Amino acid sequence: MKAQVLHHYDPALTAPTWVTMQDVADPKIHKSTDVIVRIGGAGVCRTDLHIIEGIWRPHTDPTGSALLPLIMGHENAGWIEEIGPEVEGFKKGDPVIVHPKVTGGTCIACRRGHDMHGDGKFPGLDSHGGYAEYLHTASRNLIALPKTLAPKDVAPYADAGLTAYRAAKKAAQQLLPDQSAVVIGAGGLGHIGIQVLRAMCAARIIVVDISDKALELAAMGGADHLVKADGGEVEAVKALTGGKGAEAVLDFVGEKGTTKKGIDMTRSAGSYYVIGYGEDIQVPTVDMVITEKNIIGNLVGTWAELTELMALADRGLVELHTKHYALADANQALKDLHNGLIKGRAVLVP
Amino acid sequence: MKAQVLHHYDPALTAPTWVTMQDVADPKIHKSTDVIVRIGGAGVCRTDLHIIEGIWRPHTDPTGSALLPLIMGHENAGWIEEIGPEVEGFKKGDPVIVHPKVTGGTCIACRRGHDMHGDGKFPGLDSHGGYAEYLHTASRNLIALPKTLAPKDVAPYADAGLTAYRAAKKAAQQLLPDQSAVVIGAGGLGHIGIQVLRAMCAARIIVVDISDKALELAAMGGADHLVKADGGEVEAVKALTGGKGAEAVLDFVGEKGTTKKGIDMTRSAGSYYVIGYGEDIQVPTVDMVITEKNIIGNLVGTWAELTELMALADRGLVELHTKHYALADANQALKDLHNGLIKGRAVLVP
Amino acid sequence: MKAQVLHHYDPALTAPTWVTMQDVADPKIHKSTDVIVRIGGAGVCRTDLHIIEGIWRPHTDPTGSALLPLIMGHENAGWIEEIGPEVEGFKKGDPVIVHPKVTGGTCIACRRGHDMHGDGKFPGLDSHGGYAEYLHTASRNLIALPKTLAPKDVAPYADAGLTAYRAAKKAAQQLLPDQSAVVIGAGGLGHIGIQVLRAMCAARIIVVDISDKALELAAMGGADHLVKADGGEVEAVKALTGGKGAEAVLDFVGEKGTTKKGIDMTRSAGSYYVIGYGEDIQVPTVDMVITEKNIIGNLVGTWAELTELMALADRGLVELHTKHYALADANQALKDLHNGLIKGRAVLVP
Amino acid sequence: MKAQVLHHYDPALTAPTWVTMQDVADPKIHKSTDVIVRIGGAGVCRTDLHIIEGIWRPHTDPTGSALLPLIMGHENAGWIEEIGPEVEGFKKGDPVIVHPKVTGGTCIACRRGHDMHGDGKFPGLDSHGGYAEYLHTASRNLIALPKTLAPKDVAPYADAGLTAYRAAKKAAQQLLPDQSAVVIGAGGLGHIGIQVLRAMCAARIIVVDISDKALELAAMGGADHLVKADGGEVEAVKALTGGKGAEAVLDFVGEKGTTKKGIDMTRSAGSYYVIGYGEDIQVPTVDMVITEKNIIGNLVGTWAELTELMALADRGLVELHTKHYALADANQALKDLHNGLIKGRAVLVP
Ligand SMILES: [Zn+2]
Ligand SMILES: [Zn+2]
Ligand SMILES: [Zn+2]
Ligand SMILES: [Zn+2]
Ligand SMILES: [Zn+2]
Ligand SMILES: [Zn+2]
Ligand SMILES: [Zn+2]
Ligand SMILES: [Zn+2]
Ligand SMILES: [Zn+2]
Ligand SMILES: [Zn+2]
Repeated sequence: MKAQVLHHYDPALTAPTWVTMQDVADPKIHKSTDVIVRIGGAGVCRTDLHIIEGIWRPHTDPTGSALLPLIMGHENAGWIEEIGPEVEGFKKGDPVIVHPKVTGGTCIACRRGHDMHGDGKFPGLDSHGGYAEYLHTASRNLIALPKTLAPKDVAPYADAGLTAYRAAKKAAQQLLPDQSAVVIGAGGLGHIGIQVLRAMCAARIIVVDISDKALELAAMGGADHLVKADGGEVEAVKALTGGKGAEAVLDFVGEKGTTKKGIDMTRSAGSYYVIGYGEDIQVPTVDMVITEKNIIGNLVGTWAELTELMALADRGLVELHTKHYALADANQALKDLHNGLIKGRAVLVP
Repeated sequence: MKAQVLHHYDPALTAPTWVTMQDVADPKIHKSTDVIVRIGGAGVCRTDLHIIEGIWRPHTDPTGSALLPLIMGHENAGWIEEIGPEVEGFKKGDPVIVHPKVTGGTCIACRRGHDMHGDGKFPGLDSHGGYAEYLHTASRNLIALPKTLAPKDVAPYADAGLTAYRAAKKAAQQLLPDQSAVVIGAGGLGHIGIQVLRAMCAARIIVVDISDKALELAAMGGADHLVKADGGEVEAVKALTGGKGAEAVLDFVGEKGTTKKGIDMTRSAGSYYVIGYGEDIQVPTVDMVITEKNIIGNLVGTWAELTELMALADRGLVELHTKHYALADANQALKDLHNGLIKGRAVLVP
Repeated sequence: MKAQVLHHYDPALTAPTWVTMQDVADPKIHKSTDVIVRIGGAGVCRTDLHIIEGIWRPHTDPTGSALLPLIMGHENAGWIEEIGPEVEGFKKGDPVIVHPKVTGGTCIACRRGHDMHGDGKFPGLDSHGGYAEYLHTASRNLIALPKTLAPKDVAPYADAGLTAYRAAKKAAQQLLPDQSAVVIGAGGLGHIGIQVLRAMCAARIIVVDISDKALELAAMGGADHLVKADGGEVEAVKALTGGKGAEAVLDFVGEKGTTKKGIDMTRSAGSYYVIGYGEDIQVPTVDMVITEKNIIGNLVGTWAELTELMALADRGLVELHTKHYALADANQALKDLHNGLIKGRAVLVP
Repeated sequence: MKAQVLHHYDPALTAPTWVTMQDVADPKIHKSTDVIVRIGGAGVCRTDLHIIEGIWRPHTDPTGSALLPLIMGHENAGWIEEIGPEVEGFKKGDPVIVHPKVTGGTCIACRRGHDMHGDGKFPGLDSHGGYAEYLHTASRNLIALPKTLAPKDVAPYADAGLTAYRAAKKAAQQLLPDQSAVVIGAGGLGHIGIQVLRAMCAARIIVVDISDKALELAAMGGADHLVKADGGEVEAVKALTGGKGAEAVLDFVGEKGTTKKGIDMTRSAGSYYVIGYGEDIQVPTVDMVITEKNIIGNLVGTWAELTELMALADRGLVELHTKHYALADANQALKDLHNGLIKGRAVLVP
């Protein structure tokens, strides 16, 4: 099959191209519940740029030389091409979205519903992913798509959407109608987070962003208040919340000072959710004690949560803006992402 | 002051009039945190008919002769007329809605936020209520109204709305976007319940009612599916839920067989919420064990929950249909309610 | 292999013998994750008597003639005899306890950790169980036993213990140190429930039983107060709880009037847990509304919960009293159970 | 009355004495629910040393000159001396422990049961406390003591014990029997935390301390594993938890590097509880995302939680080691605390 293959890390992200279109061996069924998916769309994610930079090497390639060449692509949807002999409930041709973490389903994490904390592979990061015509996964990872949703339009939900969904759901399950949620960063993930909050709770939603366009989009997604990130955003949020701060602050940026600002605009006894990443959090223990705030990490989401997100998408309660590229144009998509030219999410279509 | 006074029980509800307009002594401040509210609106509630019938006598008048004459009216809003010497945060003229349960705020139930389970009076049921020009209450019971909300338009939220809110909130906090909630009975309370579910979760909402008009209203309030209660409602709900039933069933009727039907249309591991009342629930223990269903009682709501509901109302996320009557027309309002002529809620305006 | 086989229902439970020792075909691996377990112990359960009576026919044998002959036995532990080609983490000879519900692990119930609500078989009830030398199950159902725990001593945890554990855990997660839990029935399951409550919360434990011996055992298991069930048990519990009733009532009997008494001794806003079964629950809706009580069904438990229970057993925090019978003496064990002669749990040892 | 009064801050904590015994005006009832308590015991707390150092000035004395002279002492118990005219349920002579935060009970924080997040005074920090013969407080702050508990023996529960209780309770409500909790620092608070965990959950308890004596005490309080803090404590905890770390880590130290170590020994998806304070927490956002850990602040506890803790103490499930000093010896008690000579907690007895 055709695939876009990463052969070399590029820490400075300055190489003219990063991936190479080439013929590779088709993936094969080898376990009874394996599945081959024909890719309908593969999301292009900032994590892919981080893989190219080598940021993930300590986690996925500790010797530094065992992983490449790698087919990236961890946000995948398509149609079933082939199934192992014990796969039940799916057949060739079924449209599916693919949960990104491949696990056995038997460890205690999986049993308690926390799939992404189980042991297993994460194709696209530590094994071959979906920048290709076909993808090897397992039947446990599949979610059938309703007719309303085409693979190429939903692929980014598999990781980017799911991450935003899980964090927003955690917050929504705590938030009451007299309370407030702040979303810092109304970009690809943040925009989904806003829609999820709107659908799943009745708290007031305050969106903080540096971009006027992003704030406009946020208003359409359900934001109640817009705050331009001009340096005074902590005071602006406090002014909107009776001087107290918001009960939930979802930080989809995680760098350039948003962590300190995000914690500062969190109300006593409230929660600050870490979603975007980059800088360090630094907070005095005495402040954590006097305010009793919580700092909450967030990691992708579970298979059940991807099902929940698909239910929202199916009913039009969340919408994803996508820009499609041919698989052959993967380098262009990655460059456009690197250069901030993607509104919403880029998707490769073989 | 003028008040409408109940002098006699009427078990058959056949007397030509039930309450009598007369002059009574004005209520007085006697404790330092007491408050006198000038009534702007007093909701007329089916519970008032039950008081007249004598259904509440075992609870509020066990000797049968100690309670009457009684000024009914437990759903009150208005303006502060007078405050005790230690009331803080309120002043004469402030518009307020009045939480119906008067408690000291110091028992363990109050401390844990479950006001309505604390010891105390429930004016309108066991002491004088708001079918009058003035009402005696305590500063703990007050919630300041925003400018968007007039007392006569919100009074029924104090009990009817709060009851619907609490039950719907309990369900909403469990419900996920791939799940379903059934509302049985889209009348005064049910209609609020539908709106609360719509605002606070993303589950699909199925409404069951015998009235086409009620179903139409339900659709406007946010129902996703309408089921005419024609005898086949259990099967209809199952058909809408993959044969499994709904994760949450909120029964705002509680009589004429809805309890058995409601439990039957509840999914395994789901919850059936008792809000309306009248008949007995009868269910085999073996069914409770095989299905692991929950049967959840519901009692009014807390002061904090009334604050939450006012936040929803302030932002237009729930709306209440009211019909206003002069205080002098209290008997007419009660008769209209008894005769099924009230759409939404009746409110007495002094 | 040798097995004890049920050939006929006996509604009156009067036949001299119920099961027949005979040679049957060995169970075989046919799926890649199948496992054959050599039985070390098979618990004899009241549910087995109910199967013989035919009580389960509507659920497991609706035509009435498709299920028998059946090898009963749903509480199984032993050693792995053979594994399918894709079983990981287990090998021949490993000691294991077997979760009773065989599921695929991919439905939404399993994904959310509620295995026992997933679709699947329940060997011993609807397919061949462990009254035999060997049992067919799946690798998903296995939990490795620590060296402290022998199969014949733990087998009843697989269903009886797990059921008691789940209900007691639900209660323990709600109960605070100033609150009270009532256990009705300190027999096989109740005795485990008491120990689980003692290990997992700090509420006061009140045990109600008709038997002085059971109450003595309960005191050793951690009961704080003992109440003889002599007709005045509701008043006795109220006297021990300031007149209010207990926040949690776990009913391990579910017949002979315990349901009404159990609900009556539950405090307002408290929960009554249905575990034992037999009679119908009957409760006025108005009582559910005035008291805001909850009635909570309980069904076995999850694989993760069986792991939790094994952790308790491993550390000596729960203990199970067992009486061992040779497989050849299965009828004797069943008769002894039927005649109330078993203290703790009977276990067949092939 | 006699009181020990702080007249000057001492940032270096080098003055020969800090407080001065003198006659001051008796506190007086001025509101209808005020209460005067005759002090039976006033706990001496590290927070008192921090007040003397001036660490609390930014919070309680921002101008730096408005607070002193101050009577410290925020951990108080004694007997009711006088009550305001509307106090109910208490009378002169009743033994009580005093919740430290004085609030009105009507703000939304109080209504939801989070008293310590409400507005109000904290006597001993921002107004006169209990290093004296009498204390001014409010009836809302009182908890009646059972006969088993003497004021001078329980006073430190009012703050130190309550803080440990709340954090341990939060953890206990999450922890399952197959999981582990680490307690860092088995001193005054940590020792109570260990006992609370032991009483309220069945997780394995691992205690980390630099002192062999503290570890011995921890073992008596219910610790399952002891880890000497010799630099290898992260590895030691991982070795005890299958290489994964503990689901809950309660840090009662919060300085000298425990924050980094505490977070490192927390399992993925687990929670690190900040209780002791001193240093800054510093953690990369990417680690919070990859591991999905939570960092949980903790602030004293609620009135209801102090009631819960008294229930534990009443039944002997937690025990407090106290050393009594005459009120005249307050400087000695403070010096002994500063010099690390107090095992358990020091209490001033007037
Ligand atoms: Zn991604
Ligand atoms: Zn797993
Ligand atoms: Zn009402
Ligand atoms: Zn109360
Ligand atoms: Zn098989
Ligand atoms: Zn059983
Ligand atoms: Zn399943
Ligand atoms: Zn005062
Ligand atoms: Zn203290
Ligand atoms: Zn307050």
